[in-house]
Amino acid sequence: MTAPFPSEEAAMARAVAVAGRGRGSVEPNPCVGAVLTTPERHPIAEGWHQRYGGPHAEVHALRDAGERARGATLFVTLEPCSHHGQTPPCADAVIAAGVSRVVIGTEDPAPHVAGGGIARLRAAGIDVQVGVLQQECRSLAAPFFKWLAVRRPWITAKWAMTLDGKTASRTGDSKWISSRESRALVHRWRGESGAVVVGAGTLRADDPHLAPRCEAFGLPPASRTPLRVIVGTKGELPPDCRLARTPEDGPILITALEGAPPTPLPDHAERLDLPAAPCDPHRIDVLALLDALADRDVYRVFLEGGGATAGAWLDQGQTDEVRAFLCPKLLGGAAATTPFAGEGFPTIATAAEFCEMRAEPVGPDLLITAIGSVGESPGDFWFKSARRAAGATE
Amino acid sequence: MTAPFPSEEAAMARAVAVAGRGRGSVEPNPCVGAVLTTPERHPIAEGWHQRYGGPHAEVHALRDAGERARGATLFVTLEPCSHHGQTPPCADAVIAAGVSRVVIGTEDPAPHVAGGGIARLRAAGIDVQVGVLQQECRSLAAPFFKWLAVRRPWITAKWAMTLDGKTASRTGDSKWISSRESRALVHRWRGESGAVVVGAGTLRADDPHLAPRCEAFGLPPASRTPLRVIVGTKGELPPDCRLARTPEDGPILITALEGAPPTPLPDHAERLDLPAAPCDPHRIDVLALLDALADRDVYRVFLEGGGATAGAWLDQGQTDEVRAFLCPKLLGGAAATTPFAGEGFPTIATAAEFCEMRAEPVGPDLLITAIGSVGESPGDFWFKSARRAAGATE
Repeated sequence: MTAPFPSEEAAMARAVAVAGRGRGSVEPNPCVGAVLTTPERHPIAEGWHQRYGGPHAEVHALRDAGERARGATLFVTLEPCSHHGQTPPCADAVIAAGVSRVVIGTEDPAPHVAGGGIARLRAAGIDVQVGVLQQECRSLAAPFFKWLAVRRPWITAKWAMTLDGKTASRTGDSKWISSRESRALVHRWRGESGAVVVGAGTLRADDPHLAPRCEAFGLPPASRTPLRVIVGTKGELPPDCRLARTPEDGPILITALEGAPPTPLPDHAERLDLPAAPCDPHRIDVLALLDALADRDVYRVFLEGGGATAGAWLDQGQTDEVRAFLCPKLLGGAAATTPFAGEGFPTIATAAEFCEMRAEPVGPDLLITAIGSVGESPGDFWFKSARRAAGATE
Repeated sequence: MTAPFPSEEAAMARAVAVAGRGRGSVEPNPCVGAVLTTPERHPIAEGWHQRYGGPHAEVHALRDAGERARGATLFVTLEPCSHHGQTPPCADAVIAAGVSRVVIGTEDPAPHVAGGGIARLRAAGIDVQVGVLQQECRSLAAPFFKWLAVRRPWITAKWAMTLDGKTASRTGDSKWISSRESRALVHRWRGESGAVVVGAGTLRADDPHLAPRCEAFGLPPASRTPLRVIVGTKGELPPDCRLARTPEDGPILITALEGAPPTPLPDHAERLDLPAAPCDPHRIDVLALLDALADRDVYRVFLEGGGATAGAWLDQGQTDEVRAFLCPKLLGGAAATTPFAGEGFPTIATAAEFCEMRAEPVGPDLLITAIGSVGESPGDFWFKSARRAAGATE
């Protein structure tokens, strides 16, 4: 028999880990993971929500366990649902399977759940505990909570920089700061996103493709074909650029400031005219763009730069999460470029705060990840915002 | 009985770890660590070279073990010495203690050792193995090897930056990017250094103190009082700056370009006139400064910035090691400052390469460390350079 989980937190951490496998395929649903164990925490089965419209995490785990679910403990990152949506209520499936105890990471603030799943389980005599690894489980579901709260996509900024924080040399050279292993991850992340965004400056400088080319890096095919977005004020797309020449790799959206002259565009490109940012008449309003992306069912935005665009989004408060590759080089150069330009914050005390900062090796690089913090953990912030949006009183 | 080391590498890794405790106190000797175990690798004793002129690592471990050293295995990061220096030959002590087997990380390229210690042990019938964790052991001793090879100090550049690679905001605010835990480490590192260096720009902007104030951070007192060095072209020290007002906290060295007008200085400050850098008539020649520091028995230089000075040193190829605090904030700002300015490298392919990049949490920050690589591991490079300087043929 496999070794038992040493603690309830360890079992829940496993559920959090498997949940992430659904990223990019489950939206607008949240990523959810489930682990079934014996009462002594020996693992029986696990599952995760794999795709939108498919079974939820609990159901995958229960199916895998079969009769062994009777009397078992279920660890699940999010409160089981209590309503008929695309699938029958998970709470009913848990009850029917004979599970004795359910340990839940966080309540689901969605108006059609909001404690209803927990109540249903308890009414059936199941021992329910809520809040194990609550912060991690809320961080996992933060993009979902944000969507519930403000109906805008989750923004992940990505860049590769040298040890001294440079994204290109003084001559503009940036190929390649990061390793092939790191660039493979970038393609996987593009394929988990609803939109991949760069600025017009990067379009001119790098002539990017922006599609997930997972096969070229030996990865499984991407689950999504993201919308390729160019953020600029003129709505221009050079007719010979890679984006223009690759209609088969997905649609293109090009922003312009309202009033900009008409621009010729290929059939697979849409122009979107937007108002100017409240703080800067020379930049588009990022919130207006995010609303337009939400209307196009974009739940995750992958912001690839460059510095001017990432800086403008930071200036407008729109950076939920960062993924930075730190590469073992020093580039130097007062004229080299950095990942976030823009206006910037005037003081350290006013800078944007992040939390859950972690480092992991990817080839010779270090991948640094962190989530934007808003005075409290982002999971808690967006959980409470979602509850408020659902009309709950605190 | 304590659990045995699972492998020879694990025992040697412990020796490497304890060796570092001597940093700052043993120079110009290398940091060396030793672990004594039973033949089955159960730990018996450990030791490290603690201060220059004191017993070597092996002797500390042998003394601690007493009679238990008989028949034991000794793991030592550097070849035991075979000559009468400040202390009697360690090889003789190892033989006298009845050790059966000696596992050595790396040969010592110093001309008065250079295999002599190994030969002496083998002649006494001891089983000797060389090269376990060789790269780590050579990295540990790289500052010593560099000194043997070129008689210049080891240069560690340190900085704190935000997630987006900024060391100060567009308004010049930098207090504090890093946490109190990180700043405490900086004071410890200052106390392990022979010289702490900043540029004249940082002197003007930050009015730094540069002394290790370990007690203020609840740390044991520093083992050294480093020379406080200002790198500038004019040799100026404002009479009311903190450096000028704190003669009790150590001497000061201020550089000027040869031909700069005389400047008034307090008694505890020395002015050093240096030639211009070959590549830049407006900057001092860093190699000339390093030679002058070597003449003043400075074996470790702690380079604290700012960006212009660190960039000038990088431009002149003088960055052996980096220690960067990465702080969970985004600052943004095209006009914000970065850790290395200067001319910089024109392309990614020509950038300075580093290796052994690692991250570890320090309070809310991540400490990123790496060592400069010169086409091969820095330990190997400086080992071979030291051997060549000693007249060895390869």
